[in-house]
Amino acid sequence: MSVIVVGTMAFDAIETPFGKSGQIVGGSATYLAWAATNFVHNLKQVSVIGNDFPQEELDALAKRGVMLDGVERKKDEKSFFWAGRYHLDMNTRDTLDTQLNVLANFDPKIPDSYQGAEFLMLGNLMPKLQMSVINQLKTRPKLIVLDTMNFWMDTAMSDLEKVLQQVDVLMVNDSEARQLSGQFSLVKAAKEIQKMGPKFLVIKKGEHGALLFHENKVFYAPALPLEDVFDPTGAGDTFAGGFIGHLAATKDISFENMKTAIIKGSALASFCVEKFGTSRMKEITQNDIEDRMRQFVDLVNFDIELANSAVTS
Amino acid sequence: MSVIVVGTMAFDAIETPFGKSGQIVGGSATYLAWAATNFVHNLKQVSVIGNDFPQEELDALAKRGVMLDGVERKKDEKSFFWAGRYHLDMNTRDTLDTQLNVLANFDPKIPDSYQGAEFLMLGNLMPKLQMSVINQLKTRPKLIVLDTMNFWMDTAMSDLEKVLQQVDVLMVNDSEARQLSGQFSLVKAAKEIQKMGPKFLVIKKGEHGALLFHENKVFYAPALPLEDVFDPTGAGDTFAGGFIGHLAATKDISFENMKTAIIKGSALASFCVEKFGTSRMKEITQNDIEDRMRQFVDLVNFDIELANSAVTS
Repeated sequence: MSVIVVGTMAFDAIETPFGKSGQIVGGSATYLAWAATNFVHNLKQVSVIGNDFPQEELDALAKRGVMLDGVERKKDEKSFFWAGRYHLDMNTRDTLDTQLNVLANFDPKIPDSYQGAEFLMLGNLMPKLQMSVINQLKTRPKLIVLDTMNFWMDTAMSDLEKVLQQVDVLMVNDSEARQLSGQFSLVKAAKEIQKMGPKFLVIKKGEHGALLFHENKVFYAPALPLEDVFDPTGAGDTFAGGFIGHLAATKDISFENMKTAIIKGSALASFCVEKFGTSRMKEITQNDIEDRMRQFVDLVNFDIELANSAVTS
Repeated sequence: MSVIVVGTMAFDAIETPFGKSGQIVGGSATYLAWAATNFVHNLKQVSVIGNDFPQEELDALAKRGVMLDGVERKKDEKSFFWAGRYHLDMNTRDTLDTQLNVLANFDPKIPDSYQGAEFLMLGNLMPKLQMSVINQLKTRPKLIVLDTMNFWMDTAMSDLEKVLQQVDVLMVNDSEARQLSGQFSLVKAAKEIQKMGPKFLVIKKGEHGALLFHENKVFYAPALPLEDVFDPTGAGDTFAGGFIGHLAATKDISFENMKTAIIKGSALASFCVEKFGTSRMKEITQNDIEDRMRQFVDLVNFDIELANSAVTS
């Protein structure tokens, strides 16, 4: 099934306690595409790049079945650039430099060839641009997933509230869910956020896993404990790419299938953090993914006998 | 199966964003006993109390099948007292007051009637005292579980290292596992800690659940997302009490059964935090526990089809 992916394609310069990446290709839509194409083809990419974005990176995506009609190249400008340094805990980071460049006047345009897509993944971007994409679609997709961050809650809350009313699934981290809802308890936060529009809420907790809330149901997928986290950049986007890719491939947007989508997203994210940038994502095979899914099953598998029924989970 | 439990029986005065408890009964051995007696009887309690510790609290424990021969009452002294205030996140807290009182010269004595116990739960205490208990036992228990904290790593590391060599299961939180091992990755921390003695490591992560490590195996039990956390005091001890209680009741110390023990411990801890002190623990029934176990199964239950086998977990 066809998926539109919207987000940045950019350059990052990353420092971790283990080394420096130098300038490498990154951006939310880059990670989303590398992840989703493990499960689905003809991904309809929407982004903006400058004259400096490497053609071979676009070729590599095209080879994976990513359509690039919606990726605008601005010939006289430079690509978005972000530089950051991770702390020893690999959860917190300092931004060292941000150069908006092409992103400053980004106005995403949906090509005619993208119309009719059944899935829409809105990567983290200015909420106005996310809304503009929704408004350009002649048919509402079957499922709209939106990723956002605290920065937009601080600076563009009323735009964010408007776009939230239009989406089915919101993805944020735990502190963002708390900020957005004004509730400390994630159970209460999920109730508040469902009133704001999204009927499904995915809370990403990094090394602590991810939660899925829908109505009064909740699913908790732990994260695989990793020997080494080399570079967490893009892990959230990779998770989201795996999530939407699995849903689109299976054409099933039930709560039950979203559980599997979360586990697939987690498995992909666990690869992403093993090397700088997208390099690990370019290496992995279907067998690698299956192996990690099996590790995940082992991680959470248990048998319990309850009084009135023997339950295997 | 018989279990010896060693720890404090004390007074707490707790402040949370939701209220103040006033002076109430607490202490690690108190929580351990209330939790473990849901699964096992004839718990052999070892602690020290002052003249101020209420007889009705001892009577209530005796009624649940807790043996109190090893609880020494010092007639001219006061019980250990701790006062603390939780921050809004309910994970961090400030100590407002600590009065060691009877704990200053605590020298735990194992009554003859306790000899031959097959399980030993060493609650968080000065490592020298934990070692003294082990040394007093004429037959080594089948399983020794030790709880400790960062304070002893800072102030009594060489004693802690000695007692760690004697135990089977270590319980700490994630930051303590990192401090003890000098490793940030919990996978690496678990390997280092297993070299120090304990063949099993339980890492408590509060609202993020708990991990069990043994050899190259790992199990991750998420915590139930709770609508309200009223008072986290004693949750870790309650978890430990449920853990040892289940193992002792089933007489099975396999990795597989420890998974169930962790889930039972988590279920009990989720009750503990609903009210101040032990009050919620005094109310719950076997049906309440079964209900919560069922919620836990629902929380983590998923179906995944892997390439070579359909796996239900």
